[in-house]
Amino acid sequence: MQQVQAKRPQVVIVGAGFGGLFAARALRRADVDISIVDQHNYHLFQPLLYQVATAGLAPSDIAWPIRSILRRQKNATVLLDRVLEVTLVENVVVTAKQRIPFDYLLLATGARHAYFGHGDWEQHAPGLKSIDDATSIRRQVLMAFERAEMSSDASEREQLLNFVIVGAGPTGVELAGAIAELARRTLAADFRRIDSRSARVILIEAGPRVLPAFPDKLSDYALQALGKLGVEVRLGQAVSLCDADGVIVQDERIPSATVLWAAGVAASPAGRWLDADTDRAGRVLVNGDLSVRNHPHIFVIGDAAAVKDSNGKPVPGIAPAAKQQGRYVAGVIRARLTGTAKPPDFRYRHAGNLATIGRKSAVIDFPFMQLSGFFAWWVWGIAHIYFLIGVRSPLTVAINWLWQYATFGRGARLITGKQPQE
Amino acid sequence: MQQVQAKRPQVVIVGAGFGGLFAARALRRADVDISIVDQHNYHLFQPLLYQVATAGLAPSDIAWPIRSILRRQKNATVLLDRVLEVTLVENVVVTAKQRIPFDYLLLATGARHAYFGHGDWEQHAPGLKSIDDATSIRRQVLMAFERAEMSSDASEREQLLNFVIVGAGPTGVELAGAIAELARRTLAADFRRIDSRSARVILIEAGPRVLPAFPDKLSDYALQALGKLGVEVRLGQAVSLCDADGVIVQDERIPSATVLWAAGVAASPAGRWLDADTDRAGRVLVNGDLSVRNHPHIFVIGDAAAVKDSNGKPVPGIAPAAKQQGRYVAGVIRARLTGTAKPPDFRYRHAGNLATIGRKSAVIDFPFMQLSGFFAWWVWGIAHIYFLIGVRSPLTVAINWLWQYATFGRGARLITGKQPQE
Repeated sequence: MQQVQAKRPQVVIVGAGFGGLFAARALRRADVDISIVDQHNYHLFQPLLYQVATAGLAPSDIAWPIRSILRRQKNATVLLDRVLEVTLVENVVVTAKQRIPFDYLLLATGARHAYFGHGDWEQHAPGLKSIDDATSIRRQVLMAFERAEMSSDASEREQLLNFVIVGAGPTGVELAGAIAELARRTLAADFRRIDSRSARVILIEAGPRVLPAFPDKLSDYALQALGKLGVEVRLGQAVSLCDADGVIVQDERIPSATVLWAAGVAASPAGRWLDADTDRAGRVLVNGDLSVRNHPHIFVIGDAAAVKDSNGKPVPGIAPAAKQQGRYVAGVIRARLTGTAKPPDFRYRHAGNLATIGRKSAVIDFPFMQLSGFFAWWVWGIAHIYFLIGVRSPLTVAINWLWQYATFGRGARLITGKQPQE
Repeated sequence: MQQVQAKRPQVVIVGAGFGGLFAARALRRADVDISIVDQHNYHLFQPLLYQVATAGLAPSDIAWPIRSILRRQKNATVLLDRVLEVTLVENVVVTAKQRIPFDYLLLATGARHAYFGHGDWEQHAPGLKSIDDATSIRRQVLMAFERAEMSSDASEREQLLNFVIVGAGPTGVELAGAIAELARRTLAADFRRIDSRSARVILIEAGPRVLPAFPDKLSDYALQALGKLGVEVRLGQAVSLCDADGVIVQDERIPSATVLWAAGVAASPAGRWLDADTDRAGRVLVNGDLSVRNHPHIFVIGDAAAVKDSNGKPVPGIAPAAKQQGRYVAGVIRARLTGTAKPPDFRYRHAGNLATIGRKSAVIDFPFMQLSGFFAWWVWGIAHIYFLIGVRSPLTVAINWLWQYATFGRGARLITGKQPQE
């Protein structure tokens, strides 16, 4: 598959999230030229997107320019561009602006939202996958309080002060907890005509538990912590309709001006580009070394791939998994370049699953123990900062986040954007 | 003019910039109810807008929610709304959402850009007055480098790497210096196909000097400092045309994809609302106590007013002037409420005029002395932080800004917004 040419092997990486970025970094001493393509100019720390969406952190606290991160890596070129297709017979990636030939291709394009066949719900129930999603939701949430302050209609105020979150995985739980805190504490003294503390935060989950991927004990703890924040949790109930006025759940109409979708993800179109086999969520089925069947020089990782652990279980779509896979693929490529033995199949080392509930409480599912409560929240913070080593100076990030926490990140509560006032 | 009613006198303040905000704060112990109306939910520290526009600071570093600033001031209600007109016979402010009766009205609505009759230039040469202006310019400036990196056309690259700033007052000088530094230092290692240091930054001024409101000596210093940053300064030259391809100056076509307007301001429509006499720039002509002729209970201050100093000179449209006027009007209102003697006419105390050139150099025109160079830059920083007392804890701001300075504010270099890629 390698084209015989005088110049160095060309590695093209699509997506500068955890998978793509750590693959590029792991190839920094390899004798290759790397082109890393992303539709945004920044690397995004997704686990904290919900903080931007709930006005606790600013975008610049959780995203950093890819060029900045890779500035010293001379074998890496960053391209701000959008991939349209992959021409397999020629080994070329076709983007909006150019054609990029490759010897090795790594697709790390992540996931989008899935609405289970109800694509028309998306306009009423936005998801949270990008900075622009987050600032848009932030605007919607803050404007709901502003509009309620100005409204003289009781039923309109009720609708504005109902917040509905669909899906009780980590994202949904974190959004619900953070909005409840915003309403009950952060904004409590800001308004004169409404009492922000009277807002209802309703978390709807079709399954029997919140945080279904966590052990029962942590799941129960999270449910209690949500209750203490005044979040109404509906378990075993599915949304049957979502429109401009709110949702319908079990034949009950809940009026709401802010419905947020955290209920399902589907892979990015990587599988379509490759015309490869995918699972039901669009994730590309890959070999043990994360390459695509019949295309040993093409790899797919992270949320875009259906990766199975050595015991057959699917690897979770979380950041540490993507990071491990990115580094693994870099190792496979390096082995091929130097002609050393093929590495063993990818094995996922479960580092832990984490979720926060508000500013003071978290649950952590480590392989060796489980943590909950305020102590877990600090461990969560340290784990995230540690996780960023290689992206940003951990000390820089630690100081910045602690600062935002201590000062309640008030600057993050800006309503920006050119939309006319609702 | 005061309506006789059982409840407390109603003071309505339109605009939560320096004038309106400090007027509200100065009335915090007065026996009045204050409604402060602003079309944005944040108070903006305008002197540093150019930093957001040139990706040195994030919006949340220079803007803070008005509700947050006034949360403890129980006699103040914040309304996010847009004023449409003022009904003088009924003493009512009409907004998009409601009618607000007043006993005293203070208009502190600031200024917009003026294009000297060439309104069609605005779409090609944006100005810098709001957060959204700043993030839009930031996107345009950063995207110019990104597009140049991807371009295979030499004349397109030239156009993309030419940056034109029109008007060499403080805003224009600061923008030019900051963009030059971005190109020559901050982004220098980020690109592989272009050399960002080859960008041209061209500052065009119709008058004979940069910083015309400053003494000659500081003006000369600023000109030299700009030269050291590689800014090309054209003095005594006016832009005769501005379009999608760039500008025409003295019959010379300068191709550019980024033309920024810092050449003229005009007052907000306050004068139109009041059907009052205004000067040529739309600023309302006011009495010695800053009230409007024939309407002693209506005041206009800041950039929206044509205020004359006691020696007949116009008071400059800078932040300290607005702050002094806001406090002054609060004093006038307090005197009327308590029946004490009418205060003397407003007197402007010139605190100093400041401008920076890049990250290491500034000029300061104090009444008693002039400063230039790196020392001036530190004084400038301290002066700004001091100036914010009453808005935000100065220590908080100091630490935050120093932090951004030390870490080169990399997080501020995000390209956000849903525009399709240019």
